[in-house]
Amino acid sequence: MKHTGNCIIGQSGGPTVAINASLSGVLQGILENKLYEKVYGMVNGIEGLLQGKFLDLSELFKTQESLDQLTHTPAMYLGSCRFKLPTCEHSEAIYEDLFAFFEQHHINTFFYIGGNDSMDTVLKLSNYAKDHDKNLNVIGIPKTIDNDLPLTDHTPGFGSAAKYVATSLLEIAHDTYIYNIPSITIVEIMGRNAGWLTAASVLARTDYSPAPDLIYLPEVPFDMDQFIEDVKAVKAKRKNVIIAVSEGIKDFEGQYISASSGSVDAFGHKQLCGAGKTLENILKAELGCKVRSVELNVLQRSAAHIASKRDLEESVAIGKAAAKLGREGETAKMLCYERISDAPYQINIFAHDIADIANQEKTVPRSWINKRGNDLTHEAITYLRPLIEGEVHLSYLNGVPHYCNIAHLHG
Amino acid sequence: MKHTGNCIIGQSGGPTVAINASLSGVLQGILENKLYEKVYGMVNGIEGLLQGKFLDLSELFKTQESLDQLTHTPAMYLGSCRFKLPTCEHSEAIYEDLFAFFEQHHINTFFYIGGNDSMDTVLKLSNYAKDHDKNLNVIGIPKTIDNDLPLTDHTPGFGSAAKYVATSLLEIAHDTYIYNIPSITIVEIMGRNAGWLTAASVLARTDYSPAPDLIYLPEVPFDMDQFIEDVKAVKAKRKNVIIAVSEGIKDFEGQYISASSGSVDAFGHKQLCGAGKTLENILKAELGCKVRSVELNVLQRSAAHIASKRDLEESVAIGKAAAKLGREGETAKMLCYERISDAPYQINIFAHDIADIANQEKTVPRSWINKRGNDLTHEAITYLRPLIEGEVHLSYLNGVPHYCNIAHLHG
Repeated sequence: MKHTGNCIIGQSGGPTVAINASLSGVLQGILENKLYEKVYGMVNGIEGLLQGKFLDLSELFKTQESLDQLTHTPAMYLGSCRFKLPTCEHSEAIYEDLFAFFEQHHINTFFYIGGNDSMDTVLKLSNYAKDHDKNLNVIGIPKTIDNDLPLTDHTPGFGSAAKYVATSLLEIAHDTYIYNIPSITIVEIMGRNAGWLTAASVLARTDYSPAPDLIYLPEVPFDMDQFIEDVKAVKAKRKNVIIAVSEGIKDFEGQYISASSGSVDAFGHKQLCGAGKTLENILKAELGCKVRSVELNVLQRSAAHIASKRDLEESVAIGKAAAKLGREGETAKMLCYERISDAPYQINIFAHDIADIANQEKTVPRSWINKRGNDLTHEAITYLRPLIEGEVHLSYLNGVPHYCNIAHLHG
Repeated sequence: MKHTGNCIIGQSGGPTVAINASLSGVLQGILENKLYEKVYGMVNGIEGLLQGKFLDLSELFKTQESLDQLTHTPAMYLGSCRFKLPTCEHSEAIYEDLFAFFEQHHINTFFYIGGNDSMDTVLKLSNYAKDHDKNLNVIGIPKTIDNDLPLTDHTPGFGSAAKYVATSLLEIAHDTYIYNIPSITIVEIMGRNAGWLTAASVLARTDYSPAPDLIYLPEVPFDMDQFIEDVKAVKAKRKNVIIAVSEGIKDFEGQYISASSGSVDAFGHKQLCGAGKTLENILKAELGCKVRSVELNVLQRSAAHIASKRDLEESVAIGKAAAKLGREGETAKMLCYERISDAPYQINIFAHDIADIANQEKTVPRSWINKRGNDLTHEAITYLRPLIEGEVHLSYLNGVPHYCNIAHLHG
C-alpha cells in the first residue's frame, strides 16, 4: 500500500444527533478507499488537541458494525470545545505547536465538524498553512441544529432536531386535547437568532391537529400586545391553543423576551426565566385560564432515538465527500448541500470556500413567515418537510439505546 | 348470532402512552370472540357521558390495522376527565340518568380505564348496580405512569414512561459529557407522591455512563444539607454530575421543595418553580459551577414513539382479559398483573376486588432505596428493568408518527 499519510478529525460546538454520523462518514470514506493510513481523532476539539488529547480512530472503528453504531450515537464521540482559535498575529506559538504535532504524526489533512465558530478555526488553520507553506489540507464539515450556516441548503443535524420538535409537538397536542377544558400550551424551542427549528414545529400539523396554532420566530420583532390578541383570537375558536416560540424572540428594541421577567427567588437568587415561562406568566395574568409552558430543552439536540433517517444518511454522505476532498488536495473548503428538487427530494454535495461561510449566519427569510409574523408560508413547509423524513431503527441494550462507549470523555 | 347486549368503555385521569393500547385490547377481545354486539365509547369519561357525549367504537374500529394504530396512539382516544362521581346518597339523580342511558342502549358492561380516582368511579357504579339490582358489570383497567396502584405488580403505561425517562437520561448524559468543563445537570421527573418513575432513571446507567449519579425520590424526606454534601462528593470524583429528582420531593415537614422558592417576577406575578429549578438555583449559589435543570415535562407521559413494546403488549392483553371478564358476568373487579418470575420475565393477569384498590396508593418500598436515600438497590433494578424492554415501530406520515385522528376531541 502506498503511504498516503495520516489525517486528524475533530468535533466542536454544540451537540446534534448527526455529528457522529459525519464522523462515521469520514471514517467510512477513508476505509472504503484507503485514503489515509492512520486517522487520529482530537478529543475535545482543537482545545483538547492543544493539551495533547487525541485517539487513534483507525484502531477503534474497524468494522462496519462499529461505524453504524457511531452513526447512531448522539452528541460528540470525540467530545467538543467552545474555543476560538486566536489569530496567528497574537498567538503564533499555538500555531507552531499544532503544526509541529501534524508534522510529527505525518498528518496532511485536518477535518473539523462544527458550526459557525468551528468554521472560523478551519479558516484560520488553512490561512496559516497557506501563508507558511505547510502541507495541510483543512476541510470543514457543517453541523448545527440551528440550520444557520450560509450557502448550504441546510445543515447536518437540523433535520433530526426538526423531527424531534415536530413529533414532540404532535404528542403534546394529543396530551392536550384530551381534557374538555380550555388551555394554552406554550412550547419553547431552541434558536437564539435563527428560527429554523421553531419553524419546523409547523410540520407537526396533521389533518386533525392544527397545533401549533401560532408560531413566533426571532426573525420578527415580538409584539406583546399583538401576541395576546393572537392568542385571544385562536382561543375564541378553539378549546386548546398550542403555541411554538423560539427561545430567542426579541422585542422591537432587540431585548430578549426571556430577559424581561428577571426575578429574585426566596433565597435571593436571580432567576432567569425562558421565553416560554415568561409568556406563560403573562397569559395567566391576562387570560385567567390554564396555561403551561414546556421547554424542549437539550433533548431536541440529543434524542438520537428519533433521528431523521434522511439527515443521518446525508451526514454520512457529506463525511465521505469530505474524506475524498481532503485526499484530493483541496483545502479551505466546507462541504455544502445543494437542493436539486423538492419533489422528488434530491440534493448534491459540493465544496465551497470557507472564507464565505465562517462567522456568517443565515436566518429564515421574512418572505417565508406570514405577514402577521405568527405562522409559516407554504414555501417554508415545502423546504422543511423532506428534511425530517425517514426513521432509524437503533440497537437497544437492556431497554435503552446501545450507543457508543464514551467513557474517554468523562473522568 | 346470539344477542349478547352492548358495552361501553371510558378513559379517565392523566394520559399515558398505553391507555389506548388497553382500549384497543378490549376492542380486540370483543371482536375476536364476538362478546358484545355494539361497543360504545364515552367521550371525556363519565363526565362527558353525563353530557350525552359518546361514540360507536364498533363502527370506528373494524380492522386490525385501525386497532394497531389505536394501540400506538398516545394519551386518550376517547378523551379524559377529572371528575369525582358524587356518592349516591348525595346525587342519586346522576346515577338514575346513567343507568337509564345504559338500559336504553342495552349496555350490560361498563369498562373504565384509569388510575386511583377512576377506580373510585368503578367502585361506586358497581355498588349502585348491586344495591339497586341493576344488570351492569363494572370492570376497571388500570393505567398510570405513576405505577402507584396497589395489588398489581405494575401499571400499564408505567413501562413506557420509564423507557422514555431512562432513554432521555442516557441521551442527556451524552449531551453532557462532551464538554471538558465541570457541570451539574438536574433532571426533574414526574411523580408527586410515588417515586417509581424517578426510580426508573437508574435504568439509564450503562457500562460507560454512571448517570444519574444521584437519585432522589419523594419516599425519603429531602435533606438540603445532605444533598449539597452528596453533590460535592460526586463532583470531587467526576467532571459532570447528573442528578434525577422527583417533582414531589419534600422536606422533613412534608413541604414540597418546589414550593420553597416562590418568587415574584418583574410583572408582579407569583412564579412557581419546579423542584429541579429550585435545586439548580441553590447549587449555583453553593457551588459556583455550571448548573442546569431539565424538566422532562409532559413528553414522559405522551412520547408514544419511544414506548416500551412490553408495556403495550401487556396493555393490549389486560384489555382483552377485561373484555372476557365483563362478558363472564364478573363485576367490581380491576385487572392486575402478577409477576411470576424476573428472569425469564413472566406475568399472569388476574382480577381483584376493586374495593381493595380504589383510592389506595403504592409507593417505592424504603428497602429498595439505599440507606442514604440517594440511589436505588439492586432489587429495584431487577424489578424495573423488564418493564422497559422492547421497541415499537410506528407508522409515520410526512415524517411524524401516524396516530389516530382525534378531531372529535377538540373544537
